[in-house]
Amino acid sequence: MTDDPVRRHDGRFRWEGVDVLAYKQEGAAPFRDVSRQVLFDDPSLAAQLRYFEVAPGGWTTLERHEHVHNVMVIRGKGRCLVGEKAYDLAQNDLVSVPPMTWHQFHAGPDAPLGFLCLVNRERDRPQLPAAGEAAELGKPLSP
Amino acid sequence: MTDDPVRRHDGRFRWEGVDVLAYKQEGAAPFRDVSRQVLFDDPSLAAQLRYFEVAPGGWTTLERHEHVHNVMVIRGKGRCLVGEKAYDLAQNDLVSVPPMTWHQFHAGPDAPLGFLCLVNRERDRPQLPAAGEAAELGKPLSP
Repeated sequence: MTDDPVRRHDGRFRWEGVDVLAYKQEGAAPFRDVSRQVLFDDPSLAAQLRYFEVAPGGWTTLERHEHVHNVMVIRGKGRCLVGEKAYDLAQNDLVSVPPMTWHQFHAGPDAPLGFLCLVNRERDRPQLPAAGEAAELGKPLSP
Repeated sequence: MTDDPVRRHDGRFRWEGVDVLAYKQEGAAPFRDVSRQVLFDDPSLAAQLRYFEVAPGGWTTLERHEHVHNVMVIRGKGRCLVGEKAYDLAQNDLVSVPPMTWHQFHAGPDAPLGFLCLVNRERDRPQLPAAGEAAELGKPLSP
């Protein structure tokens, strides 16, 4: 982060003063081709705004938690699982993930899926499905 | 708002289940051609995400407040005043408005300026400049 009030977008979903981070920093959660950038993390704000990008063919971890995810697609297209249903996603679509609801984001086969994700600064850790349970939960996402 | 976890963008910066609201609901704050939509307002989230759109040639109120504004441009282009400096803005640029800092957003003459604005749910009311003071404060925005 810099002290400049304006941080410019470079035209390729990277921003001045914003590091590209590992998507997961611990554990063995299964995911593929996901990057993470924290766009706003002001200590006086009770929430953070992050940008996640899933490369074509990739997916985020299938997980659930008490805290709510508020998501807005800003690049590409894909699909998401929320609870027991899958939804197609396109630019500027909004997704609300309720508490303790299994969810996962997939990029399309030939397009990235980039989305903003708004969360409370104070939040619980994600839970992962038990071994064998993930395939069952993810069924609605299958073509 | 609906109970559906996905609310679709209609391709023209309107969303399913999201009302287009008046920009200011009280007072005589000067502004021109601004609309407001609340995209996320989940009671369990400590912040709200709003979408403001300034029509070509329009501007938001010149104001300041204790609460921080975190802004991301998602449509068009324009300029913003933050403190004593003006900045050009383009798609996906990020703006952080610090506490008690005068700020104003202007659309370009031939393009709208649409931006997300993240704020705490609990926040103070904006202050307006005293009569005659606005012209002085807004000088950096003059062409």
